[in-house]
Amino acid sequence: MCTHLLYSVSGKRNLLFIPGPVEVEEEILLASSKPVVNHRGKIFHEIFDDTKRKLKEVLLTKNEVVILTASGTGAVEALAANFAPGRKALVVNSGEFGSRLAETLKVYGAEVVEVAAELGSAPKLEAVVSQMDSVKPDVVAFVYNDTSPGVRLSYARELVKEAKSRGALILVDAVSAVGGDELRIDAWGIDALAGASQKCLAAPPGLSFVVLNDEARENMSKDVKSVYFDLRRYLEYSAKSETPFTPAVTLFYAFNSALERILRFGVEKWISMHVERAAALYRAFAALGLTPFVEEEFRSRTVLSFTTPQSVNAAEFRKALIEKYDIEVAGGLGKLKDRIVRVGVMGRIPMRDIVALVTAVGLEMKERGVEANLPEALAELAKLATYEHL
Amino acid sequence: MCTHLLYSVSGKRNLLFIPGPVEVEEEILLASSKPVVNHRGKIFHEIFDDTKRKLKEVLLTKNEVVILTASGTGAVEALAANFAPGRKALVVNSGEFGSRLAETLKVYGAEVVEVAAELGSAPKLEAVVSQMDSVKPDVVAFVYNDTSPGVRLSYARELVKEAKSRGALILVDAVSAVGGDELRIDAWGIDALAGASQKCLAAPPGLSFVVLNDEARENMSKDVKSVYFDLRRYLEYSAKSETPFTPAVTLFYAFNSALERILRFGVEKWISMHVERAAALYRAFAALGLTPFVEEEFRSRTVLSFTTPQSVNAAEFRKALIEKYDIEVAGGLGKLKDRIVRVGVMGRIPMRDIVALVTAVGLEMKERGVEANLPEALAELAKLATYEHL
Repeated sequence: MCTHLLYSVSGKRNLLFIPGPVEVEEEILLASSKPVVNHRGKIFHEIFDDTKRKLKEVLLTKNEVVILTASGTGAVEALAANFAPGRKALVVNSGEFGSRLAETLKVYGAEVVEVAAELGSAPKLEAVVSQMDSVKPDVVAFVYNDTSPGVRLSYARELVKEAKSRGALILVDAVSAVGGDELRIDAWGIDALAGASQKCLAAPPGLSFVVLNDEARENMSKDVKSVYFDLRRYLEYSAKSETPFTPAVTLFYAFNSALERILRFGVEKWISMHVERAAALYRAFAALGLTPFVEEEFRSRTVLSFTTPQSVNAAEFRKALIEKYDIEVAGGLGKLKDRIVRVGVMGRIPMRDIVALVTAVGLEMKERGVEANLPEALAELAKLATYEHL
Repeated sequence: MCTHLLYSVSGKRNLLFIPGPVEVEEEILLASSKPVVNHRGKIFHEIFDDTKRKLKEVLLTKNEVVILTASGTGAVEALAANFAPGRKALVVNSGEFGSRLAETLKVYGAEVVEVAAELGSAPKLEAVVSQMDSVKPDVVAFVYNDTSPGVRLSYARELVKEAKSRGALILVDAVSAVGGDELRIDAWGIDALAGASQKCLAAPPGLSFVVLNDEARENMSKDVKSVYFDLRRYLEYSAKSETPFTPAVTLFYAFNSALERILRFGVEKWISMHVERAAALYRAFAALGLTPFVEEEFRSRTVLSFTTPQSVNAAEFRKALIEKYDIEVAGGLGKLKDRIVRVGVMGRIPMRDIVALVTAVGLEMKERGVEANLPEALAELAKLATYEHL
C-alpha cells in the first residue's frame, strides 16, 4: 500500500540535522492532510489572508508579502526576474548560494560584479563598500546566511545602511535565516527579501515567499522575462486574496499551522532559541574535538559547520552517524566534501533530539580515538533556557 | 487552533466540480502528512524513483519525466524556457491557456504566430496545416484541453503527425488532460509535454511535470534564461534520483499515492472512466435544459461548459449551487462570465457526488422555471459502467 511507502520501502527514518528541510511537528504535518479547497473560493481566501497576516507577524514586517509555490531558489529567482533586468548589481558572495544568486541575476539580464571571500569567511565590509563606490550598483544583493560553508553575513545591517545611503536597491536571500536569526526587514530597510517554508519556519518544503517594501514595488522591472515569477501578477491577485496560478493549497494549511506554532511560542523567543542553541552547540561540539570551520565573526546560527580532526574523515563520520544512530547531518559541498560536517539546527527541536545528536557525535569521536569530553558538551545543553518553554 | 482552521473559520466545505484542483481521496491526503525526509537521502531517492516510475506508467510513456515543485503554469514555463529561445513557434490557440502559452513562449524569446478560433471552437486542422506550410515553424505548440472555454483539440494526433512530418518540435500543455483523456505521448510522437498533479491524477496541487523524448532532450536550448526551470539541471540530478532544488517532499508522498491509486484501478479504465462520465454528463445536463457551449467535435472530457437558458443568469445559478447545495462549479472567464458554467469532472468522484451534482443542477433549473427532466438525467448516470469498479 502506497500510503505506507515511506516505511515499507526503507524501514526506518533518520532524524534530520541537515540545512533543511527540517523536522516538522505532527500537528503541522496533519494540517496538510485536510481536504483540498477551491483556490478561487471563500475558504481559500480566508486561509490566504490569514497565512499572509501570520507570516508578516513572524517576519516582523509591515511590507507586502508574496507566497510562491516553489522552493527557496524559486523565490530568489523571483527577486532576480523582477529586479535584475538592465541593472548593475553588486553581489556579496560567501559561498555556493552567493554564486547561485549572482548567476540568477545574470540570467535575468543584470550586469554583475561579485565581491567574494575565502571559503569559511565573508568579504570584509570595507571591501564591499569600496566596491560600491567604484561600481555604483543599482542593486546590492547578498545571501544573509550561506549554508554551503555555514557563513552568516554578520554586518548585514551596516551593509544595508551603506548601500541604501548610496541609493541602491537591496535584495536579500534569507532563505536559511528568516525566523532563526536576528534580521529586521523594516528596521534595516531591506527592500526585497526571499525566504522559504522548510527552514527556520519549520513547515514542509514547497512554498517560498518574497517580502517587498514600497521602494521595491515602485522599482520592479517592466521587462520581467518570466510568467511564473512575475511578482506584479502575484501582487494584483493578492488584492483579491488569491494567487495568479494554482497554489499548493494543502501546503498553505501546513505553513499556516507552522506560523501559528511560532506565534504561540513567541517570535522573539523563537529567534533567540535559534541563536542560543547555536552558541551552545558550538561550545558542545568544541568539547567533543570538532573545530568550527568558519571564523567566529561569521558563524551561522542555523547551519553549523565543523572540521573534524585530521584522523577523522568527515564523510565516513557522517555515514556512521546515520548507520549507528539514525541521525543525519550534512557533508561539505564540492571540495569541502571530506573536510567538514554541517549541522542544521532550525525550527523546534526537542531537547531529547539535541541530546541524542551531541551524544552520538561524542561517542563516535571517541570511537575514532579522539579525546571527546561528552559530560562537558552535555552540560552546555543543560544551560539552554528556551527549552523550559518549548 | 490552527490545525482546525479550515473548519473553524468557515464552517463548511464545498464539493469541488471546478477545473482543478479536484477532490483528493483521504488515503492520498493522509500520505502527505508523513514526516519530511532528507531530499538528498536514501529514502527520498527511493520515493523519487518510485514516483517517476509510476508516473511514466500512468502516462503510458517510456520517455524521460521531470517533476517540478510548481503549478502547471510552471511546467508550461519550463517548456518555454527550454525550447523557445530564438525559435519560430506556431501556437494553436483555443482559449485563455492557449494565449498564456503563446505569451510564455514570447517571454522566452520565441517568434510566435498564433492560429486562433472563435471562443467555443478550435481552429480547423487545415488552417493550422496551411499556416505551418507558410510559417515553417521550428516549434508547434498547443493546449490539448483548454479549460477556459472547455475545448479539447480532438485532432491532436493528426496535428502532431503533420507537424512532425514537417520537422517541427511538438510542445503540448496537457495539464488538464493527462490521465483523463485519450492521449498517447509515445505513439503520437509528442516531444515535450507539461502536466500537473491536481487535475485528472487527483493529487493535491503543487507538483507538475514535463515529459521529454529523445528528440526534445537533444533540442534543448543552450540559452535557457531561468535557473528554476532549467530542465537540463533536473535531468542531471534525476540520474542520482534527486531534484536540483528542494522539492515539496510531502507532496511527493501524496502524488505517489495518487498514482498508485490509478494503477490499482487500471490506467486505461481510469481514462475511459473520464471519457464515459463526460459523455453521460453532457446528456444529463442536456436533459436539464443546459446547452453545451462548445461545438460537439471539440468538447472537453474533463471540463464541461454549458450555456444556461436566456432566463437563467449563469453567475447567479452558480451561486445558488454553492449556497443551497455546497457544490462548486466554475463560471466563465472574461466575457463568458455570466454566460456559461464550467463543470470540472476529473479524478475519482463517487457516484453519490455525481448524483448530487446532477440533482442539484436539475432542482435549481426547475426553481428558475426551466423544464428540466431530472429522471432522464439521472438515468444517464445509472448507465455508467465504470462505477461498478470504483
